This record gives sequence, structure tokens and C-alpha cells, in this order.
Amino acid sequence: MLARLECRNRRWRIGLVCAEDESSRMAVEWALQRKFVNVVFIGGTEIVLADKRFDRYRSHISVVRAESRDEAACTAVRMAREGTVDILMKGLINTDNLLRAVLNKEHGLLCKGAVMTHVALARMPSYHKMLFFTDSAVIPYPNREQRVEQVRTIVRICRQTGISRPKVALVHCTEKVNGKIFPLTEDYVEVIRMAKEGAFGDCVVDGPMDVKSACSADAMRIKNIKSPINGDADALVMPDIEAGNCFYKTITLFSQADTAGVLAGTKVPVVLPSRGDDAMSKFFSLALAAWCCYGEE
Amino acid sequence: MLARLECRNRRWRIGLVCAEDESSRMAVEWALQRKFVNVVFIGGTEIVLADKRFDRYRSHISVVRAESRDEAACTAVRMAREGTVDILMKGLINTDNLLRAVLNKEHGLLCKGAVMTHVALARMPSYHKMLFFTDSAVIPYPNREQRVEQVRTIVRICRQTGISRPKVALVHCTEKVNGKIFPLTEDYVEVIRMAKEGAFGDCVVDGPMDVKSACSADAMRIKNIKSPINGDADALVMPDIEAGNCFYKTITLFSQADTAGVLAGTKVPVVLPSRGDDAMSKFFSLALAAWCCYGEE
Repeated sequence: MLARLECRNRRWRIGLVCAEDESSRMAVEWALQRKFVNVVFIGGTEIVLADKRFDRYRSHISVVRAESRDEAACTAVRMAREGTVDILMKGLINTDNLLRAVLNKEHGLLCKGAVMTHVALARMPSYHKMLFFTDSAVIPYPNREQRVEQVRTIVRICRQTGISRPKVALVHCTEKVNGKIFPLTEDYVEVIRMAKEGAFGDCVVDGPMDVKSACSADAMRIKNIKSPINGDADALVMPDIEAGNCFYKTITLFSQADTAGVLAGTKVPVVLPSRGDDAMSKFFSLALAAWCCYGEE
Repeated sequence: MLARLECRNRRWRIGLVCAEDESSRMAVEWALQRKFVNVVFIGGTEIVLADKRFDRYRSHISVVRAESRDEAACTAVRMAREGTVDILMKGLINTDNLLRAVLNKEHGLLCKGAVMTHVALARMPSYHKMLFFTDSAVIPYPNREQRVEQVRTIVRICRQTGISRPKVALVHCTEKVNGKIFPLTEDYVEVIRMAKEGAFGDCVVDGPMDVKSACSADAMRIKNIKSPINGDADALVMPDIEAGNCFYKTITLFSQADTAGVLAGTKVPVVLPSRGDDAMSKFFSLALAAWCCYGEE
């Protein structure tokens, strides 16, 4: 994925909001090395100007001063809205403070009618390819409309990163549709129908199925499930934020997963690392955000 | 845990319902080898009598014929109710069919006023000790009363397996209590209050916190969470069945976890393996069920 980004020979403009933390600066430095970004540091500019590592990238960076973190957030969001940065990234600022500026109805970054959702990506030794998943951070309990947009978004991002026909599993604890106990499963039926009718372009969407069936052909065979996913999912749509967050934290802690994440459904992709994310994960998130900037090809 | 079972020098009587499947027979054979069980095979008896491996355990096994799987289930449940078996285990019978007999209001195994819940146990290379969790299989969305019983049950089972002061983390995607968006978090506050007042005996109960914070002191420090769990949880109480099932399937598939599981809140522990479980996992479940038979000591 990274190699293919570099080949494209295009630089996306990142706005890093509050550059005071070391791991964010390290992540953007790596992205500068790989030549797929230019960086606008918004807030925390003194520390950037004093950081000798950035001297060699002088023609690819710029700084915008801000008196406070909130001012940095508002400035960054305004630049994104005006089209002078392509990607926003959270530095040393609370998620709440940055999100407040992003979500502002008048001056924020919400696209009209769009559903804001979080898409993440994991690479782990125990799975044979990258695995996308949504939503571990933003929508608590998706309703049908939000579910449709989650699927639309993850299909689009999978395709943007080069998966021509993504396999999307709608995850649930049971593979039986049962609207009485599990109302979500009825939404799944509707989403699958829409996918078959072409609402999301070329893709395979199936479920309900559990994480193991989605990602293991053996597990699927033992359970006697027939599905075009065939244990080879590219993406998991999680039933709710509890399952999504549980998956994200579990693979990070117990499965040596590298992860990346990006907020979608906004005018520009927003990288919102958690406090616990390291520089590598922030760097991967930047790469994912850069892919999100490309149209489908 | 196994070694300590053997030292006890006590045999619990297992009723294996429908002995036709190989991996269940293998699991009970291992348990016979380790000398902590006697086995009553209920249904599928011809195959057991023809299985030479059991010849050497003749004084520790018996067979009860059944005309059908449902008859086997009813007979097994009656024996459990009458106290002639101590543990039930599902063999080659659908979970639904066995549960129907277990849940029968008149002739079943429900204790009056008790909440039936599923408790599981994982051992994985990336965690330094056994990790209990509930509920990945039975209660979809626990209400406050069910939550209290889940905590009571998992604390009891932890203590029965030798953990004198279990640390129980109440898992949630956020560590902030917010009844408006996340009503569960208010139940957690109440459960923690009860724990502090001694309702569950000697134990530590805290939350809400995510899986990573519950099981990593580093993650807890980075997030600046102060908790007596301190990243060293013995048990995770999952917010709902979606998160529980997602955790269970994820660690099995992506973290090389060995797991065991048992149904609690019934007159005798019931081992209900999934179709995908191997003989080792069924054997571990038997060991866990045997522990559940001991009183707290």
C-alpha cells in the first residue's frame, strides 16, 4: 500500500493540529521522507521550527501560528473547508476539542447529508492480508441509514486502496436473521439486497456472520455456512461501537496488530489517533488518509 | 489449574449427551486419564461400547441408552436434577435441543431466581495469565439485574479456580460514565458500589474501561486511568453479546487462544461447545466445569 502511494508521485497537504507531541511529528516526518505529503503545522510552531529534523524538508512544510489549541483547531478546519489542506491530523489536542470544530454546523467539515464514521485498518501476523473495519470510535449504535453509509464508505475506501472487489462481512454474534432479538440483522438483510442491486458498486457484502467465519474458510466450513465471503473478508462492519472497540483493542493488545484509522464522511479525511497510538500507527493512518483522497480508479 | 484438579483426588460425574462425535469422546477420555471424572454416556452408546479406548476405564464409565437426541437430552437433564450427574456436556446434539430440555420450566435445570449466563476462559501467549470473560453466548443485552448476576457468577468461578481476590473489569468503549449515550455505564457504577460494599465477597471490580486498559498497565498509564485493576484483569465483563462474541472469536482466530466455556446459573454446570471447538477446548471446558462444582474454599 505504501509503495503504491509513493509511485503515484503526488503530495497531499496535511494540516497537523498542535504539533507539540513527538510521535505526531515523527509520523509526518516519515510521510515527508516517503514523499507523499506536504505539511502545514498549525499551532505548536515554535517546536517545529526548533526541530532540526525538518530543516531538509523546508520546501515541503509551512507553519501557521495559533494562540490556543481551540484557535489551532478552528484555523485547521477553515483551511480544510477552503481547500488549502487535504487531510487533517490531530496532534496534541483533545479529540473533543478538535471534533467540536469539525462538527460545527456553520463552519465545520460535515458534508451535507453525509454520515460521519470511523474506518480503521489492521495488519497482523495471523491474517493473510490487510483487514478494514468500521466503526470502533464514532457511531454508537448505527441505525439503518447509518449502516448503509458505513458500508458505502468502507467499500469506497477499500476500492481506493486498490481492492477492486472488496468482500465486506456484516458481523454479528449469530448467523441467523432474527429481528425480534437482534433487530440489526434485519438491517443487514436490507444492506445485502442493496449491494446486490449495485448500490455500492462492485463488491461482495454478506452476513450476519461472526468474526471467525468472516476471516476463516475453515470456520465457515465447520459451521456449514455458505457465503461468497468464504472466510476471506477484506472488511468487517461491526454491529455496534462496543464490538468495534473491543475488536480494535483486542487485536492491538493480543494479536500484534498494526492499525491505522481515519474519520470519513467529512469534507477531508481526519486522522484522530488515540492517546495510546504510537508513531507508526499515526504514520499508517496518514497513508490511509492519503489513499482516501484519491478518487476511485 | 489441571494439576490442582488432579491433586484434589475427586471425580465428578459427567453426563455426555449424544456421544457420537469423536472430539467429545476424546475430551472425556483425557478427563478420565487425568482422573477427575466418571462418565455417563447418554445416547450414542453403541459407538462408545465399540470404542476400545474406553475398555480400560470400565469401572469409571456407564451408559444410558436413548431412542432419540431429544430423549437423551431429557434423560440427561433429569439425571442432573436428581443429582446422579454433576456436569452436563453437549455431544452431537444441537445446542437448541439441549437448551430446550435445560430451560424447561417444570423439568429443567434453572435455579429459582437465578440468571443463566455463559462464562468462558482464555489462555493465550500474549497474556500472562488465564483470562475469564462473560458473556459471549447467552444474554444478549444484560439489564442491571443480569449484570449483577454476571459479576457475582464470574467472581465465584474465579475464586473456585483459586484466584483469592479476582480483579474484574467492566468493559466498555469509553471510560467515562454517560447515562445518556451509554446507559450501561450507569449500571456499572451501581455494580462497583455493590462490590465495594462486599456484595460479591473479596474482589476488585472497576470500570468502565476498554479491553486494552483492563489488560495492560502501559495502556492504562498512557490514558492516565487510575484503577485498582491496573492492567492486570482476571476477568472481563463484556458490555453485550456482540462485544463478547467478537472478543471470543477474535482471540481464537487471531491470538492463538485456547478457550473453555461453561453455562452457569443452572443446577449443574453445562458444557456447550460450539461446532468449531476442538477436543482440547472441550477438555478445558470440562476442567472448568469441574472447578465450578467445588464450593468456595
